[in-house]
Amino acid sequence: MIGHGFMGVAHSQAWRVAPRFFDLPARPVMSVLVGRDAGSASAAAQRLGWESSSDDWREVVARPDIDLVDICSPGDSHAEIAIAALRAGKHVLCEKPLANTVAEAEAMSEAASVAASRGVYAMVGFSYRRVPAITFARDLIRAGRIGTLRRVQAAYLQDWLVDENGPMTWRLDKDRAGSGSLGDIGAHAVDAVQFITGQTFEQVSGALETFVRERPLLAEGIGLGGTPSTERGVVTVDDAAYFTARLSGGAVATVEATRFATGRKNAFRLEFSGSRGAVSFDLERMNELEFYDGDDPAGEQGFRRILVTEPEHPYAGAWWPTGHGLGYEHAFSHQVRDLLVDIAAGRQPEPSFADGLQVQRVLDAVETSAANGSGWTRA
Amino acid sequence: MIGHGFMGVAHSQAWRVAPRFFDLPARPVMSVLVGRDAGSASAAAQRLGWESSSDDWREVVARPDIDLVDICSPGDSHAEIAIAALRAGKHVLCEKPLANTVAEAEAMSEAASVAASRGVYAMVGFSYRRVPAITFARDLIRAGRIGTLRRVQAAYLQDWLVDENGPMTWRLDKDRAGSGSLGDIGAHAVDAVQFITGQTFEQVSGALETFVRERPLLAEGIGLGGTPSTERGVVTVDDAAYFTARLSGGAVATVEATRFATGRKNAFRLEFSGSRGAVSFDLERMNELEFYDGDDPAGEQGFRRILVTEPEHPYAGAWWPTGHGLGYEHAFSHQVRDLLVDIAAGRQPEPSFADGLQVQRVLDAVETSAANGSGWTRA
Amino acid sequence: MIGHGFMGVAHSQAWRVAPRFFDLPARPVMSVLVGRDAGSASAAAQRLGWESSSDDWREVVARPDIDLVDICSPGDSHAEIAIAALRAGKHVLCEKPLANTVAEAEAMSEAASVAASRGVYAMVGFSYRRVPAITFARDLIRAGRIGTLRRVQAAYLQDWLVDENGPMTWRLDKDRAGSGSLGDIGAHAVDAVQFITGQTFEQVSGALETFVRERPLLAEGIGLGGTPSTERGVVTVDDAAYFTARLSGGAVATVEATRFATGRKNAFRLEFSGSRGAVSFDLERMNELEFYDGDDPAGEQGFRRILVTEPEHPYAGAWWPTGHGLGYEHAFSHQVRDLLVDIAAGRQPEPSFADGLQVQRVLDAVETSAANGSGWTRA
Amino acid sequence: MIGHGFMGVAHSQAWRVAPRFFDLPARPVMSVLVGRDAGSASAAAQRLGWESSSDDWREVVARPDIDLVDICSPGDSHAEIAIAALRAGKHVLCEKPLANTVAEAEAMSEAASVAASRGVYAMVGFSYRRVPAITFARDLIRAGRIGTLRRVQAAYLQDWLVDENGPMTWRLDKDRAGSGSLGDIGAHAVDAVQFITGQTFEQVSGALETFVRERPLLAEGIGLGGTPSTERGVVTVDDAAYFTARLSGGAVATVEATRFATGRKNAFRLEFSGSRGAVSFDLERMNELEFYDGDDPAGEQGFRRILVTEPEHPYAGAWWPTGHGLGYEHAFSHQVRDLLVDIAAGRQPEPSFADGLQVQRVLDAVETSAANGSGWTRA
Repeated sequence: MIGHGFMGVAHSQAWRVAPRFFDLPARPVMSVLVGRDAGSASAAAQRLGWESSSDDWREVVARPDIDLVDICSPGDSHAEIAIAALRAGKHVLCEKPLANTVAEAEAMSEAASVAASRGVYAMVGFSYRRVPAITFARDLIRAGRIGTLRRVQAAYLQDWLVDENGPMTWRLDKDRAGSGSLGDIGAHAVDAVQFITGQTFEQVSGALETFVRERPLLAEGIGLGGTPSTERGVVTVDDAAYFTARLSGGAVATVEATRFATGRKNAFRLEFSGSRGAVSFDLERMNELEFYDGDDPAGEQGFRRILVTEPEHPYAGAWWPTGHGLGYEHAFSHQVRDLLVDIAAGRQPEPSFADGLQVQRVLDAVETSAANGSGWTRA
Repeated sequence: MIGHGFMGVAHSQAWRVAPRFFDLPARPVMSVLVGRDAGSASAAAQRLGWESSSDDWREVVARPDIDLVDICSPGDSHAEIAIAALRAGKHVLCEKPLANTVAEAEAMSEAASVAASRGVYAMVGFSYRRVPAITFARDLIRAGRIGTLRRVQAAYLQDWLVDENGPMTWRLDKDRAGSGSLGDIGAHAVDAVQFITGQTFEQVSGALETFVRERPLLAEGIGLGGTPSTERGVVTVDDAAYFTARLSGGAVATVEATRFATGRKNAFRLEFSGSRGAVSFDLERMNELEFYDGDDPAGEQGFRRILVTEPEHPYAGAWWPTGHGLGYEHAFSHQVRDLLVDIAAGRQPEPSFADGLQVQRVLDAVETSAANGSGWTRA
Repeated sequence: MIGHGFMGVAHSQAWRVAPRFFDLPARPVMSVLVGRDAGSASAAAQRLGWESSSDDWREVVARPDIDLVDICSPGDSHAEIAIAALRAGKHVLCEKPLANTVAEAEAMSEAASVAASRGVYAMVGFSYRRVPAITFARDLIRAGRIGTLRRVQAAYLQDWLVDENGPMTWRLDKDRAGSGSLGDIGAHAVDAVQFITGQTFEQVSGALETFVRERPLLAEGIGLGGTPSTERGVVTVDDAAYFTARLSGGAVATVEATRFATGRKNAFRLEFSGSRGAVSFDLERMNELEFYDGDDPAGEQGFRRILVTEPEHPYAGAWWPTGHGLGYEHAFSHQVRDLLVDIAAGRQPEPSFADGLQVQRVLDAVETSAANGSGWTRA
Repeated sequence: MIGHGFMGVAHSQAWRVAPRFFDLPARPVMSVLVGRDAGSASAAAQRLGWESSSDDWREVVARPDIDLVDICSPGDSHAEIAIAALRAGKHVLCEKPLANTVAEAEAMSEAASVAASRGVYAMVGFSYRRVPAITFARDLIRAGRIGTLRRVQAAYLQDWLVDENGPMTWRLDKDRAGSGSLGDIGAHAVDAVQFITGQTFEQVSGALETFVRERPLLAEGIGLGGTPSTERGVVTVDDAAYFTARLSGGAVATVEATRFATGRKNAFRLEFSGSRGAVSFDLERMNELEFYDGDDPAGEQGFRRILVTEPEHPYAGAWWPTGHGLGYEHAFSHQVRDLLVDIAAGRQPEPSFADGLQVQRVLDAVETSAANGSGWTRA
């Protein structure tokens, strides 16, 4: 595994836990953790339960005893590592967004395509696809339970930048992060909508906004934020992104991705409205899915709050009895489970790098539209 | 109409409004408003739109041009007025609770029975029966949609006595009010549960509690409270009542009626659990009813939030388009509508005084049980 | 009053009820109801409690005993009637949207301005300003309780057109209605946001969509819909409108107004996010306002569900005790109350026709933007 | 660890995960898993990650390389194992309820007391104490934030027995389980209320109910239920328990523990009402705590929905960024963390066996009261 930040911790938990709850075709061995600083990597490996550590990803990627490379480092490093790993015949799990630029994502997708022809697979880590309620939303919608889809409302709402004296982190630096809320959380929205509906974003009209253009530099990082230093830096990414989109099946989607939704901590909200029903979700209540069945008798229709913790629900049966909720990290275990099952079956795992590239193109179209007076732009 | 307090205002609104939204068999004329103080009664009549006023209910009840007497005065006056009115051949609408004692309620029920045989009808004003969501809950449950009823949870939660320096009002004086939370709001719980389920409370095990036993006397009344004077009085009613009950059909009900549920303003909550489904309600969200249909496919079950504002719902079609909510007072208009329709049809309106007496007996059994170490007591 | 459809019923209720709950400077007399068809107007007058009826608004508007004209007819008739009434020295209350075109709205605003200089006042009926929770949201935000406003999310969600076989009504005919969801419910969103924030919509980037372009003609109208005939007509208005806006104070707003949000009956949702807090509202729960106070201690912050039924809340003290909710129609009573108070005080009531014109300009800019590839357009 | 059912899986996850997120004074080694059947135990050890397995708990408890025994077997086995382990100088973590009878619990508590004097500690596994929202509720209430406590409403609502053809499991057999909903989930309610409030249940008036007295025997177990066989057995435990209690500090608590709350999957609900505020919780939304602060300005009071995922909240800082929720199992990791920290510090961990005994006495008093016409009974 490359990287041991927030994502590295989540991925480690998945590798550790998935084999205990799912029957996997192979038993994962948490072999080596890679970080830029040898000391930090060693300490993290110890803490997270990796057998060894390294500060040289090139060397690790070349090792014959490594079967799979899990990339959790910042977006600007994805392309180089992933391509090298695939060329070395390693399966790859790469955190989202796939890359910071479309060009990089294209190269990665191409490399993945070549690798797949040799039975080496790559997956991009849009982990929310494996939140049981989101997988279940897809099942309902793909089964036609809401009829013809007409409306999608997606909003990914966070508030960790509301304080204008909150410090810069690498996530606010375009060179490192590629983009701001658009690439970080807007990417989740695009992928989830496409995954759930089976439709792609064809055209977008978008706008980006940076509310706070200058911030103190970061002294010490804590969680997604940290303590401020006395120097100041320029925010080069968007604080919020807004776009309207036409989907391939005729639906219209509105998307808001923002780090300025005061009081909303991780409210990834999705609503799908069709001719026969609707489905609604909020990640802050991730064990629930709301389903409105227009086929219910008149007068008895209403959004049903379904606790997605029953044996009938995706992934849920592997865990606890009904009503005993799962948390954020469980989606990562599901991701590992599906990845290993697909690799063992010689089947392309999803979302593929091509899927990741397609999301990247949508995000790119939003940026282009925003730079051109919000005119409609093809993805 | 007798009385022009909070209930008098609500009843006046009902007489004023019902004819504008419902086809009534007779057009009500708001003739005379009666109060103990001639000046206040006259001012209230003017404000509330009554043609005249009086401070002598006996005289009014005897007037030949009066067809119906609406009693909104405190509970200790109900029996005398209602019986006189019925004997004078007037239809009677009497606010709940029917009376302060079972003996009075029995006399009233007897008088109503005699009057009914002459085509003169009496109704007790458990207005919540006519909240559309509550009527609809009854329709669902009576139609067997939740199967065999096993569990009832009823809680009427208010918090207007939490402040121990809040002053005494007539509602805290046993001589005037009969009882405290038990008779005031517990009575609503008993009536609503019996109405919705069609089962009666057969036995109860109950407890009463007075948390604040002494309070400042009332200087000036405002709403349900007012400003305190410097003198103090003794609270002679219960602040909270708790009881468990066995219903005639085998279900077990728990009831809490309290004025000490901090932060709960008027949360009259009801939940009914059966072998096939469940229904849940909260008066603070009175335009919603939650329905859990156990016949939904496995994995798709969940409480449906039904907005009870569709043409299919009781009373709702007479008002606004779907989704446009009703308020507290609308139940009173529905009550007036049903009362006039039943009178015109020569049919006993419900809830009858016999129904009111039965509620009274349940409340009395709770008091008896509470006085006897919470032992089970037949209603 | 001109018109006796849905809005006529709501306005009649307001004129009937407001004087019973509020101290008004003048006692309204419900004198004459005007409709295009003499028979229908007469029946409606009888049902709604107007003293007389007429099928000639010109004659009525000229009558010396009429002080105020309340216009509830479709949008295409507003300008002519309002201007005539104002010229005749009558105060005017005109339903929203002010007019179907900006040109008409300008003429009306001009007429209102002239009249005001003579002490004759005009008000446009954006009744939601007087929903207590919305008024209270304004109070909080104007008092600085959420700090610098950065984000507005407005969505007016209905679903009465989801069924593609639901019939045409005048609301789907551009000639009568002016526009579809944009003018009908989007107008509410624009007015409410401007009212609450004190900022105006300066520029917009918008899109319109008509999902169902042909429908059966209407046989008989029921509520907002009705039964279909066998002939078909073309829908000439938008089913849904989407726009992003930059407000005068620097905030970014997203607005969705749609009649295709399956399962959402009348969900007018507003969220305001600022540097110190946030406020959130949903008309389907109109007695509640959610307030996030960023000044609460760390770890204790959260959206507070405030029941806006306390004596401290706008208008609420005139009605029922705490926790006893109001309904849709109450806002119309508050509107009547404020209108009469302002007229008596010789003060311009709000929202003025100029305010209505400004909303119209925003809607017009959305249409222009939508017609021009969603490019940014000044309002 | 003894036992590898549902609880064994949860405890294994805790031992596996806790060291990766918390700094522990000792690194746990998952040494040996004990089960009655050697084959099942071996398979479970493999799956759950234990180094070895055994079918002889006596031998394991005597092994010198074992420092701590974690007891997850049914309640009837707790006393013998725990006492033996403590005598052998092993620390003990014992699942709740402590034992099936008060006599057993007394013996265990005594053994724990003796062991503690030698620095060997015992803890009973009321894991819900370590749900961050519950720990935080305690913090708020112990800090006086809701003032004088007057009211507790506790309800533990499940519905897995609603189907009368659902099969018998060991949980419905008094000999194995000790009691039904009372001991299984009512025990959680008693412990949580006492933990949060710092008050003990002094007297109770209770009732028990078995709605379905005969069921098919279990063919194959799945989750908490399973498939039915053709033979039938008698249910010897309660399906539901109801009790009212007086707490040591003067508050009145109502408790309902039921497996017949149709549609409620794991709704452990707690509400605490005091003179200055209130706190409300529902385990189905375990990442949220509602707090009503009566010190907020009039008109701004309301239940705040606090997402208990901030660094300021108990345990939360060790996991994910704000808004990223935890699941059911995390409380077990917190339990392991606190247990090891206390053992290392030579400090009695809580809840102690004495605490477990006290809960047992309350449950016993409920049974006694229920058997005696619900008369008040001292715990």
